[in-house]
Amino acid sequence: MANTTIKKLAHELNLSVGTVSKALKDSHEISIETKRKVHELVNKLNYVPNPYASSLRKRKSKTIAVVLPEVADSFFSLAINGIEAVAQDKGYHVLIYLTHENFSKEQSILKDFKSGRVDGILISVSRETTQGNHICDVQTLGIPVVFFDRVCDEVETAKVTTNDFESGYVAAKHLIVRGCKQITYLSISNTLSIANKRMEGYCKALTDHRMETKENGVVFCTNNEAYNYNAIKNLMSNKDHPDGLIASVEKLTITVYHVCNDLNLQIPQDVKVISFSNLSSALILNPSLTTITQPAFEMGEAAASLLFNALEKRNFILKGENIILPSVLNIRNSTK
Amino acid sequence: MANTTIKKLAHELNLSVGTVSKALKDSHEISIETKRKVHELVNKLNYVPNPYASSLRKRKSKTIAVVLPEVADSFFSLAINGIEAVAQDKGYHVLIYLTHENFSKEQSILKDFKSGRVDGILISVSRETTQGNHICDVQTLGIPVVFFDRVCDEVETAKVTTNDFESGYVAAKHLIVRGCKQITYLSISNTLSIANKRMEGYCKALTDHRMETKENGVVFCTNNEAYNYNAIKNLMSNKDHPDGLIASVEKLTITVYHVCNDLNLQIPQDVKVISFSNLSSALILNPSLTTITQPAFEMGEAAASLLFNALEKRNFILKGENIILPSVLNIRNSTK
Repeated sequence: MANTTIKKLAHELNLSVGTVSKALKDSHEISIETKRKVHELVNKLNYVPNPYASSLRKRKSKTIAVVLPEVADSFFSLAINGIEAVAQDKGYHVLIYLTHENFSKEQSILKDFKSGRVDGILISVSRETTQGNHICDVQTLGIPVVFFDRVCDEVETAKVTTNDFESGYVAAKHLIVRGCKQITYLSISNTLSIANKRMEGYCKALTDHRMETKENGVVFCTNNEAYNYNAIKNLMSNKDHPDGLIASVEKLTITVYHVCNDLNLQIPQDVKVISFSNLSSALILNPSLTTITQPAFEMGEAAASLLFNALEKRNFILKGENIILPSVLNIRNSTK
Repeated sequence: MANTTIKKLAHELNLSVGTVSKALKDSHEISIETKRKVHELVNKLNYVPNPYASSLRKRKSKTIAVVLPEVADSFFSLAINGIEAVAQDKGYHVLIYLTHENFSKEQSILKDFKSGRVDGILISVSRETTQGNHICDVQTLGIPVVFFDRVCDEVETAKVTTNDFESGYVAAKHLIVRGCKQITYLSISNTLSIANKRMEGYCKALTDHRMETKENGVVFCTNNEAYNYNAIKNLMSNKDHPDGLIASVEKLTITVYHVCNDLNLQIPQDVKVISFSNLSSALILNPSLTTITQPAFEMGEAAASLLFNALEKRNFILKGENIILPSVLNIRNSTK
């Protein structure tokens, strides 16, 4: 019954469209007898209100968008669960859009939102994103936006992050305490907020412990696995290779393990490895992986809660809301 | 400029809505001068056509839905990449909906599609799904549906799967060849197509090799990690525990490794393990994991291509299309 419209219902019942519409909304203006007739026909024809028509009137799609770089990362899949837990309570649909770390894809997705397809947006920006005009544009239209994990500093709105600077510091300090003399930080971007804050924490720990930052102290990886494999292999093929590695995101860890396997380097004897990661397999890797574990589910939950505050409370201001949830160091065999 | 409507444009320009609409569509009925004026104002006011209004007319949302049980599984995250590769080419948006293996969530998502929110649907059903009325309902409305991986047999439409029966056979035979005398298949559902076909393959291999299927030959797991941990721990705590395990889905493997760690059972000495999995960390697990690897990206790609055939070609019939892409056995240390 795709083609049953409110117009057809009205025609069949010999009523005006307005009357049918009011009957469907249970308006007191309409008699009980008329409502009964309308509902009888609705059931008979299996009529479903068209959300586009309804959205046109109310500008409410009962839908929120989650814009993410990827889903093949346990942080994001756990964060989605946190977001969906809140949205389900509120009776909202969650649509997941992937940027694949590509800025122009992110722009195109955000542009599509301008037309009112969703009521609100949760976003973790791509590694290529350096400015936020595309985000400000949808805000201007009154669509609330909340950042989680990866933020765009110049955009004024609520931000839910973890303590990236401190965690970078904790990771580096842990390797120093375990005896590392030459530590390299594997970044995924020289512009991304989380990558830079974690790097600053790492640098501060080195300074505090009077270690110099060497030329190969930071290696910038990309979104290309083959490129990353070669970059890390180059780094570790050197006689004078680092004895400690900090992986700023989960997927770099798997590459590090593969490189070490291929170069016959033992973890942790030849190089100690710590990773920012929520991998459920961290414990059963060979060797088990020391991680900085982010509160992924809780971050998703907090970001979604802020967004629903903005959607439901007339005077709720997102700007200035800044929630920082702490990460946790889990020590395992890769840094023994 | 959320509130710029075609009506406002018409009012400002002192033209009829129809004229403005035709000018925007570059109709030959409208003079070049009028079109110029309309476009000037469109640019000035940053007017974006409302897709809901446009969808109402065309009943085209340029959007396809992907309905999945979860994203925390490498099969699904790779399949999404395959789907997006095709959709991007076609200029379509991909919306990802998660059922979290819950049948009523799946029903509610499908019900929402009845209103024309998406043009087509790719679906891999939940572990609880035993019938397909909710899927037939959207088909009746003319919205094409393609199954990938997990299908609902009773629904007549295109299906893209892997050779689950043969793969179950290959997995069991591999364990038999490696000397296992008592093999248990860890299922995730007694109704799900893939779980049952893999199980039938396993049973056939046992019969062909004159091994009996014991009482604990199949253990049914659920969507609850704690439940699965206990079920597998019970199985393996028994003195007479199996010496071979087949995990029907990736996440059960991680639980198996944890249980073996906790019970001090060595893989592969005490029990050999093989898993249906696309885990990128399979090689670096302790021990490295023997897998049946599914062609996840290719399955997503094939399913999306069939869906676009149905969307673009007037006479393309999905019913009867049945693509089976083979999985591959990767032998590693967990079955040594």
